Amino acid sequence: MSRIAYVNGQYRDMRDASVNIEDRGYQFSDGVYEVCEIRDGKVVDLPRHMTRLQRSLRELRIDMPMPLSALEIVIHETVRRNRVTYGIVYLQVTRGVARRDHAFPVKPVKPAIVVTARGLNFRKNQETAARGIGVITIPENRWPRVDIKSVSLLPNVLAKQQARENDAYEAWFVDGEGHVTEGASSNAWIITKDGKVVTRSAESGILAGVTRAVLTNVMSALQITFEERPFTPEEAYEAAEAFVTASSQIVMPVVRIDGHPIGNGKPGAISMRLREEFHRFSDFS
Amino acid sequence: MSRIAYVNGQYRDMRDASVNIEDRGYQFSDGVYEVCEIRDGKVVDLPRHMTRLQRSLRELRIDMPMPLSALEIVIHETVRRNRVTYGIVYLQVTRGVARRDHAFPVKPVKPAIVVTARGLNFRKNQETAARGIGVITIPENRWPRVDIKSVSLLPNVLAKQQARENDAYEAWFVDGEGHVTEGASSNAWIITKDGKVVTRSAESGILAGVTRAVLTNVMSALQITFEERPFTPEEAYEAAEAFVTASSQIVMPVVRIDGHPIGNGKPGAISMRLREEFHRFSDFS
Repeated sequence: MSRIAYVNGQYRDMRDASVNIEDRGYQFSDGVYEVCEIRDGKVVDLPRHMTRLQRSLRELRIDMPMPLSALEIVIHETVRRNRVTYGIVYLQVTRGVARRDHAFPVKPVKPAIVVTARGLNFRKNQETAARGIGVITIPENRWPRVDIKSVSLLPNVLAKQQARENDAYEAWFVDGEGHVTEGASSNAWIITKDGKVVTRSAESGILAGVTRAVLTNVMSALQITFEERPFTPEEAYEAAEAFVTASSQIVMPVVRIDGHPIGNGKPGAISMRLREEFHRFSDFS
Repeated sequence: MSRIAYVNGQYRDMRDASVNIEDRGYQFSDGVYEVCEIRDGKVVDLPRHMTRLQRSLRELRIDMPMPLSALEIVIHETVRRNRVTYGIVYLQVTRGVARRDHAFPVKPVKPAIVVTARGLNFRKNQETAARGIGVITIPENRWPRVDIKSVSLLPNVLAKQQARENDAYEAWFVDGEGHVTEGASSNAWIITKDGKVVTRSAESGILAGVTRAVLTNVMSALQITFEERPFTPEEAYEAAEAFVTASSQIVMPVVRIDGHPIGNGKPGAISMRLREEFHRFSDFS
């Protein structure tokens, strides 16, 4: 089955789905994106993703490409047309098409929007979770505005590639003070030996993850202790458990950091429990 | 006359010039670019731009989209088809089209290439130079790999917009030590009261500008003293002259920095001389 994308008002076959070469997303990475999980054909936590999208756009002073209600219809229609029951929906909004000039177009242009959806292999992802993933740590080298979910992702690309070349799945950035900020496409978490779940505050250095936010509700409900504070790679090496969160992976156990096995080198019990319980606390639409 | 762009093997009308939505330039800013000046229908300093392009690509491990000789033919043909006698030619190379995944495509894809050209108003640019431009300074917030001329330009976009909203034309980034790195789309220079031309070394924090490199030759030939060292905004406020260099602007005098008039508030004599003499030392092809 060919994949279908929504591009600026039309549903197109992916092969013909294109944007103008002067789209500012292409020439300046002047745009933002969101990725939502799809389960049983439903979009997970869409309202939270839409809230974050609107915030990212506001920070860059890009208008919403259409009213929120219309955008939600497009998202659902893209999922439906691609017959995705389990997978992800991706959406990207850029400032639009204008003659190349760094500053915003003087005569405002219409923001450009792209929505795609694709199925993921549920069993394979479950198998990955059952094995756990490896992580490397690397120096933070992104710009400070990582709170904006922009497509200015070149440092993240290089970080992910470096992880792969070191037999790892994710790279955690470490800031100038020696603290982990977050992963190249996920938030970073550890669980201390006395059972406290630790992650950095969303106030600085990281993106306010949607999965991260929902997970704090899960922990409250399950009476799991949660602490918002920075941690170092060294503390992580000695942690009882570790995991990453992202919409496409929910809670993904980490079993190795910079070659150090975490806990007994297998996915931790609390991590797996959080993974299993997560969707009881999600919104489905 | 409609504009023509070269896109992945074809010359297209700009309105129909498009790239796939899964081009990694669009989703990840995973690509690089060059801008060359066009004078009398000739491309200025093309060999230097090609050398830098190849370096940028090598740093990101993106292949050249075609042999250098073929690329130079495409550049010249794009200039010719757009009948540009004075203006710029822009080229962008990205890692290519692949299903979205941060790390490099496992199965290598063909790099994507776009070349455009457009005329600029020579007289208007000369008038701007005769008036001089205003500059603001802002904190450096780009990633450290600014030596790669990548399209990951969102910080530069915001900097240029901030400049415009403060009645300035360029923004100079200031690093953590209080030194000017460079402009959002140019290198930054001052001339001290004793006639020394000062700019930061290309070894850290800046892009190795082509105009910057050629200008050092101009200064040698004209026996103008040149010093490679960092400077602060405060030193710049007190400078005799200041200017920026970029391929599209060559030497553009700066007459105001953060509201402080530079020298007598008019373009400086040495800056104007460098501007006038510049093309005697350029390569034309």
